[in-house]
Amino acid sequence: MDEKPHRARHEPEDETVEFSHVQCWELLGESGIGHLALRAHPDGVDIVPIDYLVHDRMLYFRSAPGTKLMELVEHPHVAVQVERLREGRWSSIVIKGRAERLAFDDEIIESGVMALATSGPGEKHNYVRVTPGAITGRSFPAR
Amino acid sequence: MDEKPHRARHEPEDETVEFSHVQCWELLGESGIGHLALRAHPDGVDIVPIDYLVHDRMLYFRSAPGTKLMELVEHPHVAVQVERLREGRWSSIVIKGRAERLAFDDEIIESGVMALATSGPGEKHNYVRVTPGAITGRSFPAR
Repeated sequence: MDEKPHRARHEPEDETVEFSHVQCWELLGESGIGHLALRAHPDGVDIVPIDYLVHDRMLYFRSAPGTKLMELVEHPHVAVQVERLREGRWSSIVIKGRAERLAFDDEIIESGVMALATSGPGEKHNYVRVTPGAITGRSFPAR
Repeated sequence: MDEKPHRARHEPEDETVEFSHVQCWELLGESGIGHLALRAHPDGVDIVPIDYLVHDRMLYFRSAPGTKLMELVEHPHVAVQVERLREGRWSSIVIKGRAERLAFDDEIIESGVMALATSGPGEKHNYVRVTPGAITGRSFPAR
């Protein structure tokens, strides 16, 4: 038998710890500030801060009309990253998924996204849902 | 004549303010923590926290060998976002540019990137330079 301990599970202070899905969702909480990565014309990427909301393990944010949302129609694959600094350790959670604009009032109302406060500039009339394909997270010491 | 004031230049507390290139570089400072957005197979995106360093208006970071860097070889277009919260306002700076692995010792030594502390997990043996194509920044009230 291999008697070596599973060090990552013991959360030693100087090790990277991988989170379970459940832990990832716990760390995301109900809402917060995250970073949205998305494709940008012609073959680049862009990154913008978002105020997000979690409902039924979907992630929602609001977006002003304009270029950002047009890119999502053409390239719906996005990544959302959220980080926390706590007790000398960084946690970083990443959701990779597919973004879609909510088209129906009942979806918008049920998600609660209309009540979401937004820190960003401008009016935010579009509601976007990210359906997660994968969620991963880990923490590591802040040096 | 249009007598309306340029409100964004007066930095009213409830308005978005666009930064000049000089202001963007000032806010990035010499080093810090940022978010790297990059392409991911097959047609998605990924986002990872990085410890960056600025030298001669280039941005440097270290990366562990592996998937992330392989993606950069195939899709060198990246975006790096850095944010600051100060006096009730968020500032977000975004560099869009081209990433390349530093291949020569003199480039690596001159950049100072070897001294860069990294918060992330694992050994970071690769040095990456991002040559900016565009740098933009703005601040807005944190609500």
